[in-house]
Amino acid sequence: MKENRSVEKTNVVEKFKGITDYWNPRVVGELNGQMVKLVKLKGEFVWHHHESEDELFFVVWGRLRIEFRDKHVSLEGGEFVVVPRGVDHRPVAEEEAHVLLFEPASTLNTGNVRNERTREKLEKI
Amino acid sequence: MKENRSVEKTNVVEKFKGITDYWNPRVVGELNGQMVKLVKLKGEFVWHHHESEDELFFVVWGRLRIEFRDKHVSLEGGEFVVVPRGVDHRPVAEEEAHVLLFEPASTLNTGNVRNERTREKLEKI
Repeated sequence: MKENRSVEKTNVVEKFKGITDYWNPRVVGELNGQMVKLVKLKGEFVWHHHESEDELFFVVWGRLRIEFRDKHVSLEGGEFVVVPRGVDHRPVAEEEAHVLLFEPASTLNTGNVRNERTREKLEKI
Repeated sequence: MKENRSVEKTNVVEKFKGITDYWNPRVVGELNGQMVKLVKLKGEFVWHHHESEDELFFVVWGRLRIEFRDKHVSLEGGEFVVVPRGVDHRPVAEEEAHVLLFEPASTLNTGNVRNERTREKLEKI
């Protein structure tokens, strides 16, 4: 049996206090090749999709609209949605929103698009 | 690009209202071979470990203590912990706790142990 001294809890609200910019996901956990990320959102993101990765958006605080080509989903605190791989989407937050992401370690925030909003290397906090 | 009409949000608090038993995880989402599960906990579970799966416990409401062989971690709402594969653990909730689990689709609730608390087939809600 492995030792477990490295098992430490993470307080999501406390972690969010340390994030002062938008659209810049931080890594707060990793398991089974997947990452737990926290990100503050405000405004409109870019349309994109992830070729081979499903992506979970869980709203911790605030409101988030995820636009699809033919519909949209409006999320409040305590609500989540899974965006399947290959599906074009655009996150939009009219006001600041605090969002937990769950997705493969390999997922790029802008998916198939690379531009000034792309974050190649994520900070762990 | 794939169609996305099947993308629907999930309200975690609403889902918990439909769960009336303890230690019986329900599946509320699936992505990348991983499952999002909701479970109400109360009392002590069995000591177990998962041979090849890391497991995330996120407390939505209440308090949860995860005991390890040489320490324990106490979680409140908004806190999570990742229990690495191979590590013996025992969840204990003195009072009712509402917990979101994130783990591979293959994960058995009692890990390496099979007894009357094992849930072989999980309901999707």
